[in-house]
Amino acid sequence: MTPLLRLQPGRDRRVKSGHPWAFSNEIVMDAAARALPPGSPVRLEGDDGVKHGIWHFNPHSLIAARILDRQAQAAPDAAWFTARIARALALRERLGLARHARLVHAEADGLPGLIVDRFDDVIALQANTAGMEAATPLIVEALRELLNPRSILARNDSAVRGLEGLPLETRLLHGSEAQARVEEGGLAFAVDLLSGQKTGWFFDQRENRARVAALAKGATMLDAFCHTGGFGLMAAKEGARQVTLLDRSQPALDLALASAAANGLADRVTARRGEALETLERMIGAGERFDVVVADPPAFAKTRKDIPAALRAYQRLARICAQLVNPGGFLFIASCSHHAAPPEFAAAVAEGVWRARREARLLASTGAGPDHPVHPMLPESAYLKGQLLQLA
Amino acid sequence: MTPLLRLQPGRDRRVKSGHPWAFSNEIVMDAAARALPPGSPVRLEGDDGVKHGIWHFNPHSLIAARILDRQAQAAPDAAWFTARIARALALRERLGLARHARLVHAEADGLPGLIVDRFDDVIALQANTAGMEAATPLIVEALRELLNPRSILARNDSAVRGLEGLPLETRLLHGSEAQARVEEGGLAFAVDLLSGQKTGWFFDQRENRARVAALAKGATMLDAFCHTGGFGLMAAKEGARQVTLLDRSQPALDLALASAAANGLADRVTARRGEALETLERMIGAGERFDVVVADPPAFAKTRKDIPAALRAYQRLARICAQLVNPGGFLFIASCSHHAAPPEFAAAVAEGVWRARREARLLASTGAGPDHPVHPMLPESAYLKGQLLQLA
Repeated sequence: MTPLLRLQPGRDRRVKSGHPWAFSNEIVMDAAARALPPGSPVRLEGDDGVKHGIWHFNPHSLIAARILDRQAQAAPDAAWFTARIARALALRERLGLARHARLVHAEADGLPGLIVDRFDDVIALQANTAGMEAATPLIVEALRELLNPRSILARNDSAVRGLEGLPLETRLLHGSEAQARVEEGGLAFAVDLLSGQKTGWFFDQRENRARVAALAKGATMLDAFCHTGGFGLMAAKEGARQVTLLDRSQPALDLALASAAANGLADRVTARRGEALETLERMIGAGERFDVVVADPPAFAKTRKDIPAALRAYQRLARICAQLVNPGGFLFIASCSHHAAPPEFAAAVAEGVWRARREARLLASTGAGPDHPVHPMLPESAYLKGQLLQLA
Repeated sequence: MTPLLRLQPGRDRRVKSGHPWAFSNEIVMDAAARALPPGSPVRLEGDDGVKHGIWHFNPHSLIAARILDRQAQAAPDAAWFTARIARALALRERLGLARHARLVHAEADGLPGLIVDRFDDVIALQANTAGMEAATPLIVEALRELLNPRSILARNDSAVRGLEGLPLETRLLHGSEAQARVEEGGLAFAVDLLSGQKTGWFFDQRENRARVAALAKGATMLDAFCHTGGFGLMAAKEGARQVTLLDRSQPALDLALASAAANGLADRVTARRGEALETLERMIGAGERFDVVVADPPAFAKTRKDIPAALRAYQRLARICAQLVNPGGFLFIASCSHHAAPPEFAAAVAEGVWRARREARLLASTGAGPDHPVHPMLPESAYLKGQLLQLA
């Protein structure tokens, strides 16, 4: 029988309003609750006897419970996970993104704390809660039943696992293949799932890459913080005349250049290794200018207290990048900092562009693509923000 | 010689920060200033002698000055307007939107208060400030030089003209043609520029129509507040099985049905005339359900004080529409209320969907397309907001 936990009297407002989390101070934390193994499925009921369904529970986490199913009689077994993942898969199929996409995006897909990225027949997952860590064997079973993949890797190296008391590790859960290929917009990219950033590929920027590339025909382009070159190569594919990739990581640049060669784009793509901000400032001094500049840095704000410094850093980055854009050219600047809200990020970019004394038009305020859905009660989980501007 | 106005001592912060407006309490309003005809170009200088360029001035408006050019020696003559409009045109050409698009979007295009929509060789403009009203002959001259259009209409019936002391009127400025055709996504729509809403066509929803239509293949669809049927017909074109159009206006429905027939889609499109909310509630009762529901109502908040009531209305609309969506289907709900901020609108929609007891994924938070650029210092002018959700 699934253990029963009760909400504190008068503390059921969040749960009743449809929020997918219950905090530790909202739950009666008696000895029995504290003794439950982290990640246990529990039934949650209000003090008023209202049944709130089945949740993953972790007595040691501030976010103590995360909803799995509003039906109190649900059982999160392999069949349940298969049904949930099948629903997520059906959405991606409807979006035309089934074989190369984020397949499961946590709470929004009804699987709190679980990330699954699909690279055709190679799957990378992240279990970011004790509940999903404990359920990993069921998830592997479900993925094998639905997709029969060649291999499944756990990329459990996200720092958020620390909040759940989970170790950081990367390991194969099924099969032996850690190299994958991702196809996007008619290009193929090599992805290293064992050592690349996040799960090895940033599916979240797909629509943004397409939007920028559509503006880059015949253009010169700078792709700063290029990682494995997604923005730059997509622009080259759409007709950019000359693309400069910039990153601090030689392995990332090597992968990008290999992808450029494999896609017949090597003649239009050059790579430069360096710390982005320093290199960009040197490029200003050297008079280098581009028709399109992309800056997609790693998160500047890792925690809430970093926000002011991060916003100053985005403003500085925007100021520097704006100086590298030719008149009439385009600047795309992104933030993947959960803690920087969209209006604040937009204001920092606007201020930086103004400090570069460039008049600008904002063409689009973008986010992640629709394979990264957001739970409607967790708008703050829409971490990716992009500003696309034309500079006069 | 262009008249010189001076900013109040200590009141130059907004102008120095790159904001495109100066308010009446920021400017020295002496007798000479008050005597200037509304819409005069003026030079603006700070109390410190810093030159802030050329502005349109209206002594009777709260927004007393709007920037035309940061260069103090600029002269806003026909050549100046031609250059500005040419720049706006170049952007739309780069976006692949030159012949059917919003050609000028006010401040963001360096032409404060001016809206120009292009329907191939028929142009509709709105002059929403005294400055643009006074400059209309120059604008007509510039448009004729750049585009040689068959006709140019002034759709000066926006209520904002009242704030500038301008009358509401619709008139031909050049040529005699008020009927236009807009092409979008392979479809042609008839547009009545004299009596239709806004300038007759909502270019701002182009990307949203495409996004929704891409999900509608094989689906049943309801297009509520359909106006001339843009969402519904685009979905039909992309393979929706059956599309129901709903609007209170018979002329709008007639145009929509004529467009359906002209595009060979009549067999899949039906029209229903009625007040949307009442009709939608009757449809719930009658058990009607759709795979895709779109609700794109007119602005619920016309002024700041309407916001709370408007947010309740959006919540109610979301609750009603959610009940009409089949399991696994999609809901797109839009707001064109300037005064409802994106997070508040999103929260109202989320709350409404939850009150309908539907679990949901938010797939995209959208805005207007890139032919509706935003001035970076006027983020609040991004009036169009859309929420695209999948409902479980």
